[in-house]
Amino acid sequence: MELTVGKIAELVGGELAGPGDCIIRGVAALDEAGPEDITFATSARYRERIDETGASAVIVPFEIDRSKKILVRVENPYLALAKVSGLFHAVSRPVIGISQQAHVGKKFRHGKEISIYAGVFIGDDVTLGDCVTLHAGVMIGNSVEIGNNVVVHPNVSILDRCQIGNRVIIQAGSVIGSEGFGFASDGDKYYKIPQVGIVRIDDDVEIGACNTIDRATFGKTWIKRGVKTDNLIQIAHNVVVGEDTVLVAQVGISGSVTIGNHAILAAQAGIAGHLNIGDRATIGPQAGIAKSVPDGQVVTGSPGMPHRLWLRVSNIIPKLPDMKKKLRELEGRIEELEKV
Amino acid sequence: MELTVGKIAELVGGELAGPGDCIIRGVAALDEAGPEDITFATSARYRERIDETGASAVIVPFEIDRSKKILVRVENPYLALAKVSGLFHAVSRPVIGISQQAHVGKKFRHGKEISIYAGVFIGDDVTLGDCVTLHAGVMIGNSVEIGNNVVVHPNVSILDRCQIGNRVIIQAGSVIGSEGFGFASDGDKYYKIPQVGIVRIDDDVEIGACNTIDRATFGKTWIKRGVKTDNLIQIAHNVVVGEDTVLVAQVGISGSVTIGNHAILAAQAGIAGHLNIGDRATIGPQAGIAKSVPDGQVVTGSPGMPHRLWLRVSNIIPKLPDMKKKLRELEGRIEELEKV
Amino acid sequence: MELTVGKIAELVGGELAGPGDCIIRGVAALDEAGPEDITFATSARYRERIDETGASAVIVPFEIDRSKKILVRVENPYLALAKVSGLFHAVSRPVIGISQQAHVGKKFRHGKEISIYAGVFIGDDVTLGDCVTLHAGVMIGNSVEIGNNVVVHPNVSILDRCQIGNRVIIQAGSVIGSEGFGFASDGDKYYKIPQVGIVRIDDDVEIGACNTIDRATFGKTWIKRGVKTDNLIQIAHNVVVGEDTVLVAQVGISGSVTIGNHAILAAQAGIAGHLNIGDRATIGPQAGIAKSVPDGQVVTGSPGMPHRLWLRVSNIIPKLPDMKKKLRELEGRIEELEKV
Repeated sequence: MELTVGKIAELVGGELAGPGDCIIRGVAALDEAGPEDITFATSARYRERIDETGASAVIVPFEIDRSKKILVRVENPYLALAKVSGLFHAVSRPVIGISQQAHVGKKFRHGKEISIYAGVFIGDDVTLGDCVTLHAGVMIGNSVEIGNNVVVHPNVSILDRCQIGNRVIIQAGSVIGSEGFGFASDGDKYYKIPQVGIVRIDDDVEIGACNTIDRATFGKTWIKRGVKTDNLIQIAHNVVVGEDTVLVAQVGISGSVTIGNHAILAAQAGIAGHLNIGDRATIGPQAGIAKSVPDGQVVTGSPGMPHRLWLRVSNIIPKLPDMKKKLRELEGRIEELEKV
Repeated sequence: MELTVGKIAELVGGELAGPGDCIIRGVAALDEAGPEDITFATSARYRERIDETGASAVIVPFEIDRSKKILVRVENPYLALAKVSGLFHAVSRPVIGISQQAHVGKKFRHGKEISIYAGVFIGDDVTLGDCVTLHAGVMIGNSVEIGNNVVVHPNVSILDRCQIGNRVIIQAGSVIGSEGFGFASDGDKYYKIPQVGIVRIDDDVEIGACNTIDRATFGKTWIKRGVKTDNLIQIAHNVVVGEDTVLVAQVGISGSVTIGNHAILAAQAGIAGHLNIGDRATIGPQAGIAKSVPDGQVVTGSPGMPHRLWLRVSNIIPKLPDMKKKLRELEGRIEELEKV
Repeated sequence: MELTVGKIAELVGGELAGPGDCIIRGVAALDEAGPEDITFATSARYRERIDETGASAVIVPFEIDRSKKILVRVENPYLALAKVSGLFHAVSRPVIGISQQAHVGKKFRHGKEISIYAGVFIGDDVTLGDCVTLHAGVMIGNSVEIGNNVVVHPNVSILDRCQIGNRVIIQAGSVIGSEGFGFASDGDKYYKIPQVGIVRIDDDVEIGACNTIDRATFGKTWIKRGVKTDNLIQIAHNVVVGEDTVLVAQVGISGSVTIGNHAILAAQAGIAGHLNIGDRATIGPQAGIAKSVPDGQVVTGSPGMPHRLWLRVSNIIPKLPDMKKKLRELEGRIEELEKV
């Protein structure tokens, strides 16, 4: 694959600064690129490193306007990188069909160009669309339905009756459709509440590695279109995650929480059960959320509070010893005054 | 399966309000149930939605005493739900014997009605009781012993010599018996302390998805009867978890901690090494516990403190900027007074 | 295997108190050891339990100088335990070669004495050194390179092109080389940034169970010599972890963080993206680190602060209600003074 810098600038809607006929054969990071590569600087902070890169061309934000290198100036370098790197690194796995060393259950229905690797287990009554890849060690339960252009990485478990949309990617080791944590207590022992619902994952979702997404008690746990989850995320039974919402690593979401569209939950945040997190809400890292969060609000801290307040609070917390000292000092001064 | 509402009321020890001869064929959530279903409302908060459900009958708490629907009034609706749903959703997996595509080691002993799916690996000298199901991708190490009526979900690893009791369920992706985190430092490098103990899991335990339960350095890491763990939980070497204790998602328990019976550790809590957590103690979500907790105490926060204190503290934390302002104001007023 | 106590004292560089000719055939914990065992007490706290052990000999710190038992007195009992237990519990797995039930891809190169268990998947163009053990359910992607004396426990996934050094141990369920969490937003949808780098793990590293270590966007995520990670740890793309650094359970490290040598990150700590954590820095449990940490510093809390400050702050936090009350009292006294 090769493209001229001019063609790349055109494809990403960028402004070219320098000759457009230079041939590019790859994308690489600033300090690893060679003369046939294009590289990228995501902010003006990297200005000084641009002249030193081995690459011939650099995708930069508009603030950067000149360099020894050919520049492709864009509004959003990350987005341009996603497009350019997507072109050069288009995944072209061979289609391998169904390995002899895979287990396939009864009533298996599938589209064209599927790749079922050795060591895959497919239960009964499973449906796969076109261009589905199931890597080694993937376990698909009975009556699971999977759409087109789905990639399931090694050692993932997708349990009975779960539904996966189109263009979904699931990273290695994740569990989709485990039994939710539902027990009733008589004050003495715990009794299992059967978890008879499913997990439904809509189109264009990407699930990270070692996620656990529990099936619903009844009905469905629902991950809507375009959601992206990082690694080691816990999603409990009956949770709904809205479209284009992002969950960063080690987030934990308790049962029956509803999260809106375009929300962002930062790493290690935890959401208590039955809450609503609004559209375009942002939850800070390690936040502990015990109340619902309205649309568009930014909440941080544990206890969770508006982010701007948290910034002030978190500046004061390390000064608590000073505050305590000041309090004692003032008390002394008051005592003096009272003596008069 | 079908039951009259009257029979259901009898089975759960509830009071019937309405005709008892209505036939029920399933259980479903309030907003998904149809006329042949019974549904449930776990608290009086759902009072208004009861009349609108498509179900013919509803399990309700005693506070709710009338409705257009047939009511089964009980003290503990969750418990009644567990019983009723357990009846209608009794798991009846076919017994498949030992798949030709499973690997079985030497000296394999097993009871009747076992199901060993394709892709299972069983080491040497393994013992299984009656009615054990090992799903695809399960790995059982050498000399493991498993009791009766155990279900191990896909891609679980149970390592050498671990012991699993009766009626145990292990959700997908969990690791039982990994080597504990034991290293000795000479100030420069770390040297591995062999982890030669085991994990023992007693009867009626349920382990969530992607748990990691480390084997003991010597002796055993011990999960006692009736313990229920949620997903992504870390249990380090030589931990003892008492009977009927509940560990909610993403809890982390450091080495050699002993937890009593009937304790509850809420989500994302962390317990430092070598501590004792008492019987019926409750640890709040995200709590960081650095001291032992006596029987029956409720501890929250990081640093952990009595829960009622934490409630007051967590109300004050967002008001720290106000406190700081007030402190400055008082200082000014004192200065004024001192000038006099 | 049997050794005299005298020989053991010599091997660990300890001082013998008692007869040296007693024969030892195993190592066990204080309360489980029998007359043919040596046991250990890691601190003088266990002084009283030493006389009660069933063992004939005890490894103790120098502070303990007499007992009914034979003593092996050392400076660092943990280190001596690591050595002695390592001798008695030397792992001697049989070399099994390549199981007929494993899948091996094209162009497979390997050293001598390898053990590839049933259910292992090895992609194309894979290289293994001598004495490599791949347990059941392990998945090795294309073009992976693994050194000598490596043990990969069950159900681990090592994805395409990752590089593993010598004497590396990877506990069950871990994922090495999953795609990093890289998405560019146009304000509406997220676009995937291809993750085309690798994970490189150097010599003498041990990775715990259910870790997720993402491949780099470009270049490498790099775990350097001697690093030890506990369970359920998240390491994002392009992270570098320095030599002999220890990551305790459930730690989360965001993208492009660089950690120095000999650092310690305690359980459940989280590090924000693009930070530097210095050599021999220590990060406390549950700490939330949003700024880089210099060499040798000890940082705790969320927000992170110097550990000694955190100790004072965490003593004050539970006293905030008292502080608030005191503030109100002082205000009242000032009002009284102002009336005069």
